[in-house]
Amino acid sequence: MELRVEIIGIGNELITGRIFDRNAGYAAGRLHSNGFKVTRILFIGDYPQAIRTALKEAQKRADAVLVTGGLGGTLDDITVEVVSHVFNRPLVLHPELESQLKRFLKKSSIPWDPLFEKMAWLPEGVELFHPRPKACGFFLEEKGKPFFFLPGVPAEMRRLLDRCIIPYLLHRHPGPGVLKQRIYKTFGLLEPEINQRLKDLESGDKTVQLGFYPNFPENHLTVLVRAEKALSAERKLDKLERVIEERLGPYIISKNDQTLEQVVGELLLQKKWTLSTAESCTGGLIGHRLTSCPGSSAYFDRGIITYSNRAKTEMLGVPKNVLRQAGAVSRETALFMARGIRKISKSNLGLAVTGIAGPGGGSPEKPVGTVWIALSSPKGERAVHYLFDGRREQVKILSAYTALNWVRRVLSDDSCLFSP
Amino acid sequence: MELRVEIIGIGNELITGRIFDRNAGYAAGRLHSNGFKVTRILFIGDYPQAIRTALKEAQKRADAVLVTGGLGGTLDDITVEVVSHVFNRPLVLHPELESQLKRFLKKSSIPWDPLFEKMAWLPEGVELFHPRPKACGFFLEEKGKPFFFLPGVPAEMRRLLDRCIIPYLLHRHPGPGVLKQRIYKTFGLLEPEINQRLKDLESGDKTVQLGFYPNFPENHLTVLVRAEKALSAERKLDKLERVIEERLGPYIISKNDQTLEQVVGELLLQKKWTLSTAESCTGGLIGHRLTSCPGSSAYFDRGIITYSNRAKTEMLGVPKNVLRQAGAVSRETALFMARGIRKISKSNLGLAVTGIAGPGGGSPEKPVGTVWIALSSPKGERAVHYLFDGRREQVKILSAYTALNWVRRVLSDDSCLFSP
Repeated sequence: MELRVEIIGIGNELITGRIFDRNAGYAAGRLHSNGFKVTRILFIGDYPQAIRTALKEAQKRADAVLVTGGLGGTLDDITVEVVSHVFNRPLVLHPELESQLKRFLKKSSIPWDPLFEKMAWLPEGVELFHPRPKACGFFLEEKGKPFFFLPGVPAEMRRLLDRCIIPYLLHRHPGPGVLKQRIYKTFGLLEPEINQRLKDLESGDKTVQLGFYPNFPENHLTVLVRAEKALSAERKLDKLERVIEERLGPYIISKNDQTLEQVVGELLLQKKWTLSTAESCTGGLIGHRLTSCPGSSAYFDRGIITYSNRAKTEMLGVPKNVLRQAGAVSRETALFMARGIRKISKSNLGLAVTGIAGPGGGSPEKPVGTVWIALSSPKGERAVHYLFDGRREQVKILSAYTALNWVRRVLSDDSCLFSP
Repeated sequence: MELRVEIIGIGNELITGRIFDRNAGYAAGRLHSNGFKVTRILFIGDYPQAIRTALKEAQKRADAVLVTGGLGGTLDDITVEVVSHVFNRPLVLHPELESQLKRFLKKSSIPWDPLFEKMAWLPEGVELFHPRPKACGFFLEEKGKPFFFLPGVPAEMRRLLDRCIIPYLLHRHPGPGVLKQRIYKTFGLLEPEINQRLKDLESGDKTVQLGFYPNFPENHLTVLVRAEKALSAERKLDKLERVIEERLGPYIISKNDQTLEQVVGELLLQKKWTLSTAESCTGGLIGHRLTSCPGSSAYFDRGIITYSNRAKTEMLGVPKNVLRQAGAVSRETALFMARGIRKISKSNLGLAVTGIAGPGGGSPEKPVGTVWIALSSPKGERAVHYLFDGRREQVKILSAYTALNWVRRVLSDDSCLFSP
């Protein structure tokens, strides 16, 4: 019997669209990958009546309930009071929490205020998770069903979920058999195309479940397998993986939930190669993505963001007459940029992007979305033309992604330099 | 009487945490700022029973229901079938939609497949929004309550919401009086501190509502005012704004929902100044943020990402002995970087960041999170030391934000160069 979990997110910021939730989604992912079934995620505002109804409904339907938000010290946080009321547990002062709070405020030179004290009053009989001053979570059991209350601050919420709640649930509900999941990130195929290529894999087999999730600019594919033992689940996943690789081939960016830049970084490390970048329309996004990986200094030497024409000439040696005649967004300029950064940095690879991100700057010959990507490598150089769809942000993201993906392909297979 | 709207997001990707929702949050924001009250946002999986229950419950409680997702062509999208069943409306083929779909696939050289045809079958009596091949939305009215069904692809969903649904709702439900909201983005104050400084503003006045929303690394403050006429609402907001500015002062980043980089860009344009950047630990993130604004080429000349020591010396002229003695993360190096980029680019401002983003690379003297930010300007130069908390990504974000915020302050007030 699968454990059905409902997640309730409390906060006016969620239902007024001020904040896009990251807590409930994260919790859902962690619960799901541990074999628990999240059946509902509900967001409501800081209204006593709405919280009351949500708690009571969830109690009826679910086996466990996880509540995030509404535990802060500001006036609109009322979860604790409603919980006290719904479960008939009067609020009591938790002295340990109060003194921690006071120590924290003193350390931070913030004067004491009754608003802070509110954070130390909790319903009777609850268990605290690791009392911490800035935000605190607690737990109660009502008619055999666990209710977890977590703060809305993402870092705190995730810490408590991972360290306290998941282990608790796994201990109490070890579950039938084993659930194993693999995630494939793909780029360049539409969702129905992926589906069409793979739809036979789950037909008639109830232990296999495929999922297709667009996650711009990637499409993600999840393969979930249930088996009696971990080993047989892994074997089945291996078998499926061979078929998936055969059918999706170069469209697969990564197999282990790695990011594109992690894959590129690992390939560079394996080859002991370095990469440097010359960015125009992406404005530093490629450098930012590459350096989001710890240890990227081993293979990313430098990047130059040449936003002006003068910078392209001064920093990368793009001739003025090339800029004048072919233009800043052209095959010639892209090649000079890639060649220039490779030479200056003495890196193995020089990657360059120049384009029109919009909304202005387009023309009939070079509309918004026109992008040239060039790569200079020991085996030669090449520039490729793209016309991306979307707003400024999307054009930037697509340009950076396509450029890094080209590097990934070239690192795996030299010939991709000439057929990206 | 306020119109109460419920939003239902359908898709296994949402309850398994594969995708963090951006649709429901966006819709909630747009509905809220147009004076409608979003009472619930619910996410459920692609299960007929769950969708059925959700639709029926929403029909009982809400005045209007907005459903996103589950309209694609893949096997797990079943919203349309359930809608047909719940509202007793048989599926019929929409020929216009089918022929559009065929034209689109032909244009994209994708072979026809019955999976695609499924997208052209819709419940009887529904109205289509702008039939478009890639994803289509529709509308039906049941017992006087409107149900809107939108695709899960964010760009399509937003387009239909903004162009069709909001205008429809505003036309049908003009609402009592006028609702006006202002958003203040702040940086550097904790949520309870902002609350403490402002809590008296809404006490006893039911027409004013404050909201406090952490949105890393910012804290957002919303002020919502209801009045009979737009003019009186604006007047009240102006009055409140003067108090808020007095009490939060330099902690306010922007007043019109502008991003920090938009504010910096406007200030640079006003002064006719240019900025160039020398980034180490931020790896291009500052350049990326600056260039996210259309027209940024008018004030952002270039950036250099010097990830290696060699690049710092070769590109920015940081002396080798400074790197050897003071280290790459030091006041001296940061100053040489800022000075170097200002000189090379001939920009008015040179901004430099060098630090240890982690998780490796820390030492007892320079732990992870140690960051030096330097600014070189016509009035002089200065480097400031920070110790940021958090993981690699957070250290990068905080470093980039703090650096840009310093530029913002210096552009508003020269003396902030020396007291950032």
